[in-house]
Amino acid sequence: MNSQTASHSDLKTSSADKVRKAIRGGLYDGHTAGLAAGKLQCNLAILPKEFALDFLRFCQRNPKPCPVVGLGDTGNPNLPTLGRDIDIRTDVSKYRVFRDGALSDEVTDISHVWSGDLVTVALGCSFTFENALLRSDIPVRHIETGRNVPMYRTSIELTPAGRFAGKMVVTMRPIPENQVAQTKAISSKYPQAHGSPIAVGDPSQIGIADLFKPDWGDAVDVKAGEIPVYWACGVTPQNVLLDAKLPICITHSPGHMLISDVAEDAETTILPRH
Amino acid sequence: MNSQTASHSDLKTSSADKVRKAIRGGLYDGHTAGLAAGKLQCNLAILPKEFALDFLRFCQRNPKPCPVVGLGDTGNPNLPTLGRDIDIRTDVSKYRVFRDGALSDEVTDISHVWSGDLVTVALGCSFTFENALLRSDIPVRHIETGRNVPMYRTSIELTPAGRFAGKMVVTMRPIPENQVAQTKAISSKYPQAHGSPIAVGDPSQIGIADLFKPDWGDAVDVKAGEIPVYWACGVTPQNVLLDAKLPICITHSPGHMLISDVAEDAETTILPRH
Repeated sequence: MNSQTASHSDLKTSSADKVRKAIRGGLYDGHTAGLAAGKLQCNLAILPKEFALDFLRFCQRNPKPCPVVGLGDTGNPNLPTLGRDIDIRTDVSKYRVFRDGALSDEVTDISHVWSGDLVTVALGCSFTFENALLRSDIPVRHIETGRNVPMYRTSIELTPAGRFAGKMVVTMRPIPENQVAQTKAISSKYPQAHGSPIAVGDPSQIGIADLFKPDWGDAVDVKAGEIPVYWACGVTPQNVLLDAKLPICITHSPGHMLISDVAEDAETTILPRH
Repeated sequence: MNSQTASHSDLKTSSADKVRKAIRGGLYDGHTAGLAAGKLQCNLAILPKEFALDFLRFCQRNPKPCPVVGLGDTGNPNLPTLGRDIDIRTDVSKYRVFRDGALSDEVTDISHVWSGDLVTVALGCSFTFENALLRSDIPVRHIETGRNVPMYRTSIELTPAGRFAGKMVVTMRPIPENQVAQTKAISSKYPQAHGSPIAVGDPSQIGIADLFKPDWGDAVDVKAGEIPVYWACGVTPQNVLLDAKLPICITHSPGHMLISDVAEDAETTILPRH
């Protein structure tokens, strides 16, 4: 860590590039919600080439929890379609390194574990559609109350590929009844960010026993006149990767996303070439 | 070939499953435009596993010409996310087999060349957005006049991956000036089918020298008050595959698409599990 550091509020109006540079320089290791407004943020999965084809099959077959938005060359830490100068070894503020399915380390730099055998997969994240909901004056409870979004294991079976299989994890946001239709319509415009809801209403229909005991994140109130709405969650591929017990895999730490240069409302997640 | 055969009009009201069964049974080897209305039809690329990861990278980086809608397991001829009983060795009405980048054979069955090493990639096709344009009373000239859509090589560089690289191929449809905005909006809703136009207007801006001399397909008139509109074309990945000179690769023959069970306006191209 340098002697200088940057705070979340220091970086709030910075460009994506500047935020990545601050992270790369060891000046910032916090969460990325609200940083580089309007830019696509990404979940991260780095895994050995041997497993990459099956993992991509898994993502293709489960596009709502696992929307692939970037894909690196084997052994190459750059992601030029997501950002002009991304180095995936240093540009995420916190990483988790897993070995044989168990957490081995939480670090701010993975240069020491990087190898010519690794493939980077970037996946869309819910920040994108949350920002779109907020722009349409649809409340997002966990943001209003400064909490983490509640996340739940469900009974929804994923379509397997190779050793990748399991059940879907969802997030829940309580939405005023009269805004549910608009919420569905808005989020359906972001297939690169989990798309439309997976379910609406009764949590038991998707195997959630108690809405107020999420498996990850924080419980939030569901007020009178609100309906719980469920979206596919980026924790799904993380869980599936862990269960696959790969010799090594690396993810971002929750909330510590890769910030891309891609506009979050762009038609594709590929930067125009210059 | 059986002694019985089916005509295009015989199959026009058949389900996707029935059309595939007729093709599998050797009863039909014609083009598939207009068959199994409302179902997603697919371009086809079958290639050795060794090249599959780079080809998927290429598709991810060039999503408008190469929207991946289905991905088989290595050596497995089924595509359960696209159809309940698809056998990719027999269910396409005509295939082209390429060896070292040269056309080796055009056949109605690839069982004799199938191997445990092959990976099937299904890609979206323009039939999907053409049907949506027609439903909104936007004219599609080549359909009106019973021709093939005109296709052109352009100067638009693709984003490379491994040995896959080249320039984009586009289709052109002349659209009445006052319907161009609606045409863009409608086609942008189908990212699984090339999405919104790549360019509008002057063909020279994308390196097309003469609009009336397409590189493939048939020239069509551009009438007074109409503007040429260009979309990314599924011939793009076919060309790129040929240029890559793989020891073997198999595609559909032009116009002879894989017919899936997926609704062409579904949010994802993955069939619900039952």
